Amino acid sequence: MRIAEIAPPWFPVPPPAYGGVELIVAQLADGLVSRGHDVTLFASAGSDTAADLVSPLEPPDPVLLGNEWLDVHHALSAYLEIDGADFDVVHDHSGIAGSALGALLRGDPPVVHTLHGPWSDLARRHYAVVARYVHLVAISETQRNANLDVPYAGVVHNGIDPGQYRFCDAKDDFLVYIGRATPDKGPTIAIDVARRAGLPLAMVVKRKEPSEQAYWDEAVAPLLNDDIEVHESVSHERKVDLLARARAMVFPIQWPEPFGLVMTEAMACGTPVVTCPEGAAVELVEDGVTGYLCNSVDDLVHAVAHVDRCPPESCRARVEHCFSSDVMVRGYEAVFERIVTSGRRDSSGFPLRR
Amino acid sequence: MRIAEIAPPWFPVPPPAYGGVELIVAQLADGLVSRGHDVTLFASAGSDTAADLVSPLEPPDPVLLGNEWLDVHHALSAYLEIDGADFDVVHDHSGIAGSALGALLRGDPPVVHTLHGPWSDLARRHYAVVARYVHLVAISETQRNANLDVPYAGVVHNGIDPGQYRFCDAKDDFLVYIGRATPDKGPTIAIDVARRAGLPLAMVVKRKEPSEQAYWDEAVAPLLNDDIEVHESVSHERKVDLLARARAMVFPIQWPEPFGLVMTEAMACGTPVVTCPEGAAVELVEDGVTGYLCNSVDDLVHAVAHVDRCPPESCRARVEHCFSSDVMVRGYEAVFERIVTSGRRDSSGFPLRR
Repeated sequence: MRIAEIAPPWFPVPPPAYGGVELIVAQLADGLVSRGHDVTLFASAGSDTAADLVSPLEPPDPVLLGNEWLDVHHALSAYLEIDGADFDVVHDHSGIAGSALGALLRGDPPVVHTLHGPWSDLARRHYAVVARYVHLVAISETQRNANLDVPYAGVVHNGIDPGQYRFCDAKDDFLVYIGRATPDKGPTIAIDVARRAGLPLAMVVKRKEPSEQAYWDEAVAPLLNDDIEVHESVSHERKVDLLARARAMVFPIQWPEPFGLVMTEAMACGTPVVTCPEGAAVELVEDGVTGYLCNSVDDLVHAVAHVDRCPPESCRARVEHCFSSDVMVRGYEAVFERIVTSGRRDSSGFPLRR
Repeated sequence: MRIAEIAPPWFPVPPPAYGGVELIVAQLADGLVSRGHDVTLFASAGSDTAADLVSPLEPPDPVLLGNEWLDVHHALSAYLEIDGADFDVVHDHSGIAGSALGALLRGDPPVVHTLHGPWSDLARRHYAVVARYVHLVAISETQRNANLDVPYAGVVHNGIDPGQYRFCDAKDDFLVYIGRATPDKGPTIAIDVARRAGLPLAMVVKRKEPSEQAYWDEAVAPLLNDDIEVHESVSHERKVDLLARARAMVFPIQWPEPFGLVMTEAMACGTPVVTCPEGAAVELVEDGVTGYLCNSVDDLVHAVAHVDRCPPESCRARVEHCFSSDVMVRGYEAVFERIVTSGRRDSSGFPLRR
């Protein structure tokens, strides 16, 4: 197939550090190429890919993260190249504007849009219109079930390359937390759990946004002590080293996160995940096998005490079987093939473009 | 001609209070209908127009002013109706996403986009792409000259309906200021000028945004005294009463504003405008005839002292001849006719849509 992948404009693909969506797109582009497809990747300058790279944008300025001008400029530049070119399918990961421009193509070529964000009221309204002309893919069953008012072309879990994560079954006596500094991610709960479990805690945090820094200063910093090590902007190697050696990851998620890539990263290293039954955590973690789904701080502390019942091999195997980039690439390939072979007027009844 | 007018989504058309672009669109839609055109207006619910109204949106929530979801949802809904309908020309006043969706139609039907904002670096980059497929209209020569890297279909000044503004040549001894609470609009300079001129000052201010309120509290409020009257959210009638009775409007603009509708409102009431040679003020105010263009506070004070040399009749006449809604409507009509009669492949060489 001739496939156009449109990345968001915020970071190069793959991202040097933060940038979950860009990481997914990097693996998809390379993975689809290695499976014999002809892939063009629309992404920021500075990207590195096995696909044909088209970079409408200069290397992005981190200050512009989320800027609407940049979002629209990137998406419009990509769609102007796509419209009239000979793609079998367009796979759009770009922002709000990208899905709208994709809709205006009215199915010619077909556009698949992966939903990377949570459902807000405004997102529901927007995608109700978009879904008339664009094939939506959810990244978890949880995300799909949270909005059944739109049709889906499928659910394809995010995936990581297990080869990039060192497996380790000889654990050290500490816990690890990775997440932004926001109440949604529960960093203060992680600290409470570690203290009550009597274990040191390594925290890898993102606190670059003013709101994150403010929450950190106000709510998290006062709880720190000598048993807590704080890291920021760590390299992939450093992150994997912490994940691999930790007894468990504490991920006390407090909002319906549509996926949660870091849980798969921990499991790939053979590290069980102690989390809460919120969002996609219930799909990612097999309770009692690759971690625990806990409803209270007491439960979280209890789970940490018994986490050696979760074999590192089971954690690793779960990622290899369910959340690997290879599984993800084949998942999208199947979605694309269904859409392409169903022809221009497909079963979802999109009207043909004039 | 069959004309589609796309308003921004933020306020109904016409706007109950604040909303300069919505006011312009209201007059254009009604004016084009009265000149015999078949006009469809895409605007928020609650709009009141002589055109056929299509409202993809519920009455807007002021909290969502500037929200990207709303901007894109409104523009996409409009363009999905437009694409495939039988319009001769689309006239787009919507935001960043609207101009991008218009570009993706590639000139079929032709899209005219009015530039309502200032030129930022990101705006320049965006419109460099958009201008390949969309006819841009500037609202002042100043705005056009600030970016000569894109082609323009014309310059059409914003216009107001003189019938809505009471002419008054018997002036009271006070000055009037209207503007947002921001350093760009020079409210503290206006206060300084009024004090040194020995005249009371009536201020009509907008300070609803947090940054406006902060600037007001910090920089403006400490300067207030008994000679300064502050108004907020005034009715049209109250605004016109203040404008009509004032000896002059003090409008010490400190940034290159692309238009400045309030200057035309003052002149329509027969009130001269004492301002600075910034942005479109140099086009709107005829120096020494309908006001003064001043380079310093001393000059502004001096101008206020001699403002009776500017005849109220000349101020009124300037608006009637140059900045009336009728002049504006005929200006756009001429732009549309040039584009429509030049055919699908027009002189600017837009490629035909497939």
